[in-house]
Amino acid sequence: MRASVVGGSGYTGGELLRLLLRHPKAEVTQVTSDSLAGKPVSRAHPNLRKVTDLTFTPHAELEETDVLFLAMPHGRAMECIPALLPRAGKIVDLSADFRLRDPRAYETYYGVKHPHSELLDRSVYGLPELHRRAIRDATLVAGPGCIATAAILALRPLALAGAIDTDHVVVDAKSGSSASGAEGGPASHHAERSGVMRAYAPEGHRHTAEIEQETGLRIALSCHAVEAVRGVLATCHAFLREPLTEKDVWRLYREAYASEPFVRIVKEATGIYRLPEPKLLAGTNFCDVGFAVDAHANRVVAVAALDNLMKGAAGSAVQCMNLMSGYPETTGLDFVGLHPI
Amino acid sequence: MRASVVGGSGYTGGELLRLLLRHPKAEVTQVTSDSLAGKPVSRAHPNLRKVTDLTFTPHAELEETDVLFLAMPHGRAMECIPALLPRAGKIVDLSADFRLRDPRAYETYYGVKHPHSELLDRSVYGLPELHRRAIRDATLVAGPGCIATAAILALRPLALAGAIDTDHVVVDAKSGSSASGAEGGPASHHAERSGVMRAYAPEGHRHTAEIEQETGLRIALSCHAVEAVRGVLATCHAFLREPLTEKDVWRLYREAYASEPFVRIVKEATGIYRLPEPKLLAGTNFCDVGFAVDAHANRVVAVAALDNLMKGAAGSAVQCMNLMSGYPETTGLDFVGLHPI
Amino acid sequence: MRASVVGGSGYTGGELLRLLLRHPKAEVTQVTSDSLAGKPVSRAHPNLRKVTDLTFTPHAELEETDVLFLAMPHGRAMECIPALLPRAGKIVDLSADFRLRDPRAYETYYGVKHPHSELLDRSVYGLPELHRRAIRDATLVAGPGCIATAAILALRPLALAGAIDTDHVVVDAKSGSSASGAEGGPASHHAERSGVMRAYAPEGHRHTAEIEQETGLRIALSCHAVEAVRGVLATCHAFLREPLTEKDVWRLYREAYASEPFVRIVKEATGIYRLPEPKLLAGTNFCDVGFAVDAHANRVVAVAALDNLMKGAAGSAVQCMNLMSGYPETTGLDFVGLHPI
Amino acid sequence: MRASVVGGSGYTGGELLRLLLRHPKAEVTQVTSDSLAGKPVSRAHPNLRKVTDLTFTPHAELEETDVLFLAMPHGRAMECIPALLPRAGKIVDLSADFRLRDPRAYETYYGVKHPHSELLDRSVYGLPELHRRAIRDATLVAGPGCIATAAILALRPLALAGAIDTDHVVVDAKSGSSASGAEGGPASHHAERSGVMRAYAPEGHRHTAEIEQETGLRIALSCHAVEAVRGVLATCHAFLREPLTEKDVWRLYREAYASEPFVRIVKEATGIYRLPEPKLLAGTNFCDVGFAVDAHANRVVAVAALDNLMKGAAGSAVQCMNLMSGYPETTGLDFVGLHPI
Repeated sequence: MRASVVGGSGYTGGELLRLLLRHPKAEVTQVTSDSLAGKPVSRAHPNLRKVTDLTFTPHAELEETDVLFLAMPHGRAMECIPALLPRAGKIVDLSADFRLRDPRAYETYYGVKHPHSELLDRSVYGLPELHRRAIRDATLVAGPGCIATAAILALRPLALAGAIDTDHVVVDAKSGSSASGAEGGPASHHAERSGVMRAYAPEGHRHTAEIEQETGLRIALSCHAVEAVRGVLATCHAFLREPLTEKDVWRLYREAYASEPFVRIVKEATGIYRLPEPKLLAGTNFCDVGFAVDAHANRVVAVAALDNLMKGAAGSAVQCMNLMSGYPETTGLDFVGLHPI
Repeated sequence: MRASVVGGSGYTGGELLRLLLRHPKAEVTQVTSDSLAGKPVSRAHPNLRKVTDLTFTPHAELEETDVLFLAMPHGRAMECIPALLPRAGKIVDLSADFRLRDPRAYETYYGVKHPHSELLDRSVYGLPELHRRAIRDATLVAGPGCIATAAILALRPLALAGAIDTDHVVVDAKSGSSASGAEGGPASHHAERSGVMRAYAPEGHRHTAEIEQETGLRIALSCHAVEAVRGVLATCHAFLREPLTEKDVWRLYREAYASEPFVRIVKEATGIYRLPEPKLLAGTNFCDVGFAVDAHANRVVAVAALDNLMKGAAGSAVQCMNLMSGYPETTGLDFVGLHPI
Repeated sequence: MRASVVGGSGYTGGELLRLLLRHPKAEVTQVTSDSLAGKPVSRAHPNLRKVTDLTFTPHAELEETDVLFLAMPHGRAMECIPALLPRAGKIVDLSADFRLRDPRAYETYYGVKHPHSELLDRSVYGLPELHRRAIRDATLVAGPGCIATAAILALRPLALAGAIDTDHVVVDAKSGSSASGAEGGPASHHAERSGVMRAYAPEGHRHTAEIEQETGLRIALSCHAVEAVRGVLATCHAFLREPLTEKDVWRLYREAYASEPFVRIVKEATGIYRLPEPKLLAGTNFCDVGFAVDAHANRVVAVAALDNLMKGAAGSAVQCMNLMSGYPETTGLDFVGLHPI
Repeated sequence: MRASVVGGSGYTGGELLRLLLRHPKAEVTQVTSDSLAGKPVSRAHPNLRKVTDLTFTPHAELEETDVLFLAMPHGRAMECIPALLPRAGKIVDLSADFRLRDPRAYETYYGVKHPHSELLDRSVYGLPELHRRAIRDATLVAGPGCIATAAILALRPLALAGAIDTDHVVVDAKSGSSASGAEGGPASHHAERSGVMRAYAPEGHRHTAEIEQETGLRIALSCHAVEAVRGVLATCHAFLREPLTEKDVWRLYREAYASEPFVRIVKEATGIYRLPEPKLLAGTNFCDVGFAVDAHANRVVAVAALDNLMKGAAGSAVQCMNLMSGYPETTGLDFVGLHPI
């Protein structure tokens, strides 16, 4: 199967390439970048040295392909989509441009009027754990946000059970520096970013809309930058309508995730890694989910961890590609992660 | 004035020494440590090389002094206190042993029956911003916990105003590796601790009791270890009883802290450091406090940052000593902090 | 093929397991650890959660196998070897115990008299780039040290060419915190180890003996701990007997490594990663080698980077197993590494 | 005494301000920056919030002052100097523009013809440990480079003793991310810079010229970026003409530095910090120097550590100002450093 990547010079594009170049069913035919056109992809992605001879192609020379991955900045895919749809039978967009069902949410959270809102119904939210069947049949899949993925997978079993006070759900998210992209900027300067605990979006973060759409809860989301390169931890504080025991919560998570290949329930009584830890997940497609019951404050603390470039972006996208193409869902996604790291 | 430190080989003891050796009014007469007795203090505190010739004294040889700082592990001070009280007219205990008014809280949170609960009434909670007058007259001051200090200073103005839904207050805390002490252990091994976003105490953290005591709120506290050596960030999610504007909240904080020498309100519209950031506070006695109003979720996000060894321990202790001794409150605490760091 | 690991609870043991569990030809039959006997291997290696159900076996219950990996502390393998030899047709020892040909070197560098020096002749130094043919036929292979591997691969082409002043070769090595093992200790405490540039072995490092044995040079080795979890960088400063141009040095390295699957020559004119960088190699079996010619000081600066747990330990060991077993040399070692990380 | 800073928006400018604002003899009258003119200095230096109300002044409005600090990029001071000389009786330039005696060295190392080489004789190399007397009388002082300061202080006692093989001196330097300035760029992006061991200048580094000028040795300098914000470690590998014992080397360093207020000889038999460690020096004006004798390779490994923004820039500059102004040399420079950090 031929696969192409539009906008392949960023971190998400690099991660897609890393996965696709080792995917037994995929052949990467083109990777576009105007700024690096003609240069080897290892110029942007030094981990691919001696792994591939691919070079970047100008956007304008994009050819037909079987699966097209869009790894462009937010706002670009929604503009280019009419030109891209004819290029491929299947499209996975990794930007936010087709994630939200309600066109008005784009105005609220992204400050733009969606130019092709008619496509929002056609697009499927690319979280296989929630929409596996729809993804199999989709031609346009919208890859979820990294923080959104973690929060949704942590909260959804509780929300479905009707156990949560839906008006007081706090999601306190922490993420690493690759989440802000390859471009950098003053806030990403190592001397400023190193060792921070920066509340960069105490409110108003765009992923709020996705989490609310997929969980039906009202979400009080606050996002922090902490010292790490990869990784998202979503700590979800969910007050309870009625008391739940640990056993109750175990049951909810087991029912939701026992057969999921990429969701592990992590909750151990001893050891260093009793709850999900993003650093163990670098390079993997896992989303680890765990929890604690706090009888004192009448809440469940649900915690989810993932690699923002993998299960939070490129990994989920390839998982969707596998589903859309009829391959086993885990194909090309079997890296187990490093310890220590 | 003579000052002595009991249990001076740990991180808090080292920080006390750093401050006291440069304090214009204090003379450090003894620092006790049984394991390092006879060794220069720079053996444990290499930053004090060539700064002092002090050596450690065995605990048993502690002499009378004017001010005694207790920097022992939790549980030790409550046992030793009868022997220590006669040694000094003023005692500042940096452990948790005299922080809580209610003796039963020690059983709940520390699993011990307090052997000298009669002293709990006599002891003053050593947060000058709340108890300045009482500290001035106290003979026994209990230095607050680091996470507690941040959370209390962030939440107190909102709590006093009666503006908060008192049953749904979430405190999501992040802290650096010095908070777990000099002893280390498997969880502190660099290869395991580096780059973590570890939910080490999703519920049940001991500082809950202090924060509730000083704010009157029910607190849902979750604590995380992140990559940093010094620093605590407390992100306090406070749902509102009735809407508050930014202006309202500004007013509350200004009323509370305008004349406080060590509390700065940090809330800027531009730049990298718009809200409090612990890394800027390493070595300082500041607690920076800031906030955001989230109309969507009907909450205020109040954020406080500090250096866990300074305003979260030794710095506050010296601030209390200054008050107890009639010195200007900021004496010896004027380090402004480094940028970048 | 059955493979077993003796001493599987440490970092090297965990890395061996990670590789072997995904190796298409190997089946891990036993992993021994007395302290964790009966416990799942994911207790020590949390990245293997849900990947394997293996549990640790007591050392005493080690059964016969095809390939045996010894991942014990230095000094243990040389004692246990008589009991282990009958257990497996092929043994790869990852400790230092069989690396040196000259038994006296063990007394000099390790302070022990080798109890089975008669085996030193039989053992092969497990660096395939130098001893591929001998490894194929070996029954006992000694995995090289991590710093030694980097320094040898950087220096060997220059040494073979007779181009170097053999008495003034400086190897200035930098390494991450996993190099000191899973046990930790005061020097590994995060608060002490974070951000260091620690000259922990300015002279006398044990790897000196290996590098001298394999290059024929006298080596002035100094080792530093820097902030990273995985990775070794060996900066080799080699003064020249006669001037060499860049082109000359390129030729030497190309001749040495053009057909090596795991050695890449990295020397670029632009970009951030112009010379080898260990952080790009986490989890991979690459040793990247590069250089600069310094006409001013009449030297070549040869730089080599690797992951100390992979090409510096477990990766090389599996590469040797592949050779000893007649499998393609790269089997199970195709992870390309992450960027960014 | 009035002091002004030209180019005060960078890291060095910020550090100068931090020191001068707490200096008992100095009054900061102006800080210039065209890009931030009119803005509070805390905009660029958030550690100075609530510490000062100073705002930035446009360069063109620089007034007369007593001491002028130039904290501009390399190449600017040499152009502006005719306009600046009349502004102040004493000038301390923190750039490289007046460090080298030989005008041709600017062409070799900086690629420019020095427009005012007649001033090179008048300028004094601002390392008080070498040129204290000349600095006292100087009107133009050139602050040394950070790596140069460390290497010179480590090597000079050995060089003066005539003990070193002058043709094979290797300086392997490691430095933190603040050394590349506040501007940042792709190589400083946290995701790329975090955890690196980057040989960014394997040869040809500009500080070579300074070190050679001040030590009389030929220097083979290689510079690495490692994970830290502040700090330089210079590991100097010096082969010996004739054997030296530890006692000999101790004597040389003691003779050189016993009475120096900011040079500590650090060489301990036990503990974690046996040799100089930059992380302990953040914010201090110390340069710690230590060594090891390597009989095997016939060399001394001399190690020096400092904070690149302090003893490597602003701290040394204030030390020079103190000398030039007749104040005690340590005035305003008594911060002892933090541990842990």
